[in-house]
Amino acid sequence: MPELRQDAVTGRWVVVATERAMRPSDLARVRSVEIEGPENCPFCPGNERMTPHELYAIRAGGSAPDGPGWSVRVVPNKFPAFKHCEAAAGSNGLFQRRAAEGTHEVIIHSPDHNLSLAEMSEKDAESVFKVYRERYGANRMDPDVDYIHLILNHGAEAGASLEHPHTQLFGVSLVPPLVELELCGTHGHKEKTGGCVFCEMIDNEMESGERVLAVTDRFTAIAPFASRFPFEVWIIPNDHKASFGDISDVETLSFTGILQDVLGKLHLKFNNPPLNCYIHTAPCDGGDYDYFHWHLECFPRVSTPGAFEWGTNMMINVITPEHAAEFLRS
Amino acid sequence: MPELRQDAVTGRWVVVATERAMRPSDLARVRSVEIEGPENCPFCPGNERMTPHELYAIRAGGSAPDGPGWSVRVVPNKFPAFKHCEAAAGSNGLFQRRAAEGTHEVIIHSPDHNLSLAEMSEKDAESVFKVYRERYGANRMDPDVDYIHLILNHGAEAGASLEHPHTQLFGVSLVPPLVELELCGTHGHKEKTGGCVFCEMIDNEMESGERVLAVTDRFTAIAPFASRFPFEVWIIPNDHKASFGDISDVETLSFTGILQDVLGKLHLKFNNPPLNCYIHTAPCDGGDYDYFHWHLECFPRVSTPGAFEWGTNMMINVITPEHAAEFLRS
Repeated sequence: MPELRQDAVTGRWVVVATERAMRPSDLARVRSVEIEGPENCPFCPGNERMTPHELYAIRAGGSAPDGPGWSVRVVPNKFPAFKHCEAAAGSNGLFQRRAAEGTHEVIIHSPDHNLSLAEMSEKDAESVFKVYRERYGANRMDPDVDYIHLILNHGAEAGASLEHPHTQLFGVSLVPPLVELELCGTHGHKEKTGGCVFCEMIDNEMESGERVLAVTDRFTAIAPFASRFPFEVWIIPNDHKASFGDISDVETLSFTGILQDVLGKLHLKFNNPPLNCYIHTAPCDGGDYDYFHWHLECFPRVSTPGAFEWGTNMMINVITPEHAAEFLRS
Repeated sequence: MPELRQDAVTGRWVVVATERAMRPSDLARVRSVEIEGPENCPFCPGNERMTPHELYAIRAGGSAPDGPGWSVRVVPNKFPAFKHCEAAAGSNGLFQRRAAEGTHEVIIHSPDHNLSLAEMSEKDAESVFKVYRERYGANRMDPDVDYIHLILNHGAEAGASLEHPHTQLFGVSLVPPLVELELCGTHGHKEKTGGCVFCEMIDNEMESGERVLAVTDRFTAIAPFASRFPFEVWIIPNDHKASFGDISDVETLSFTGILQDVLGKLHLKFNNPPLNCYIHTAPCDGGDYDYFHWHLECFPRVSTPGAFEWGTNMMINVITPEHAAEFLRS
């Protein structure tokens, strides 16, 4: 029987219609990410001249910028969606526009063209997340940046245009609509109950356990009750903290562990599927967002939203999160 | 230079970042829709027993329901996302749910497994849209249906699970979020200016002409200023009318002409691309929505939204609508 489920944070409704579904074993026939190879890859060592000048890198002692010798490397996106720029062409009545002011960086995870985040050593993956934090810190100082969006597209079918594993950082001059909705929801919940909806969610999920995928002393991974996508996973810090930018060393290590655990489960069950990850965090526009609770959202690309979803802004999910959690845990 | 553009109806911002783009000629290398063939197709003549009992059909005189002899056929979706059903499992604190109450029908365009809407004769396509209107009328009488969403998914990469050309009608028990946003925007504009934002948009677009794709005495097709997708097209009735359900015979014929013109252009330029179409119309929940202006939105699947888009609810479009219009007109 199809049902509507409401996300406790944003209030959005999702259709959970499992009669439409294939079984998890059918979904497991999702196309694996194919790697063409490192030829002409601008992110491979030796090709550093193919990118703009590097902004940051973890380097072996003595190696020079924009050459080999790095283990994690950060460069401006060559084709930025946001950049520091002059004003856009003028607005006019119904047609309002402004410059896409901001920054757009690429964090290259490692020199290895083929090594996904799921497959890296924990130590190397931890370095990547320390670089996330480093670049978060650098960008939050930029007066034109109000929000920092960190994303991972793995595989062409998840929107990745280059296959060498990398993360994109967007420093944007507005708070994105979905984050605005989460801010509104967390603020409303705080006003109403005095508490945090994410903290409460973790407590409730731990009680039932049916949607819990992994737990550490610092983080909890769940298949959210109103998942927009099949096999969607949220990783939430157990302690209330608004901004990813304030993650500690200990938390970074714990975050590395649970994220690699989740990515490893998806990698194994769907044989290296295309997938998307992004972090939702408090804006860095000087406001007080103590009521917010940062987290990571992640989902493999196992379904194709069509005109229902794009025309309504409402998702149909063909797998219950309870089944998804059971399948990923098994 | 990337820029942000605001949709005049919903207020949403879109990033138009053409430096990220391939040229239109590159985009034209989009994968064509592949047809596997009619074997075991539940929508082909002779296989009528494979679907639930038909709700409506245009039939040659004397042919019996659920057998061959039809030219357009309507059946309940075998795996409905919405249906008349008992209450869902109970809600509980943060976990709110309700039954996905409503209807879900399939309109099979013709007996021909391979004939897309772009390629049908105008007379046959007109019949399909008359059936849209017929089923719209039947569903609007249903007291549990507050909104009727008519959609077309063409090709597996646009979310179609069956390749035989068909339209889906969702009769839903809530007004979808994106329609709610458009209602809010059109209502606000009416309150503020006394006029309709869509009527004003047509006037403005006709004046500049740069985003106009096709015009008839009844409809205008434009590449909207803040297009979410490359080569997105809106078809808007020239006369202010809130509901698709009230389309006249003359308007249906004119609508057929302009939609086939637009689909034909996309078909030609992208060699039969996967695409999505949906109609935005006034709710049928008894409210007064005279301020709304129904229209169709359509886009080929030439780009892959990733974690930026899914994590922000904000789209990056790599082609300006001005270039898109020029390319489709040429």
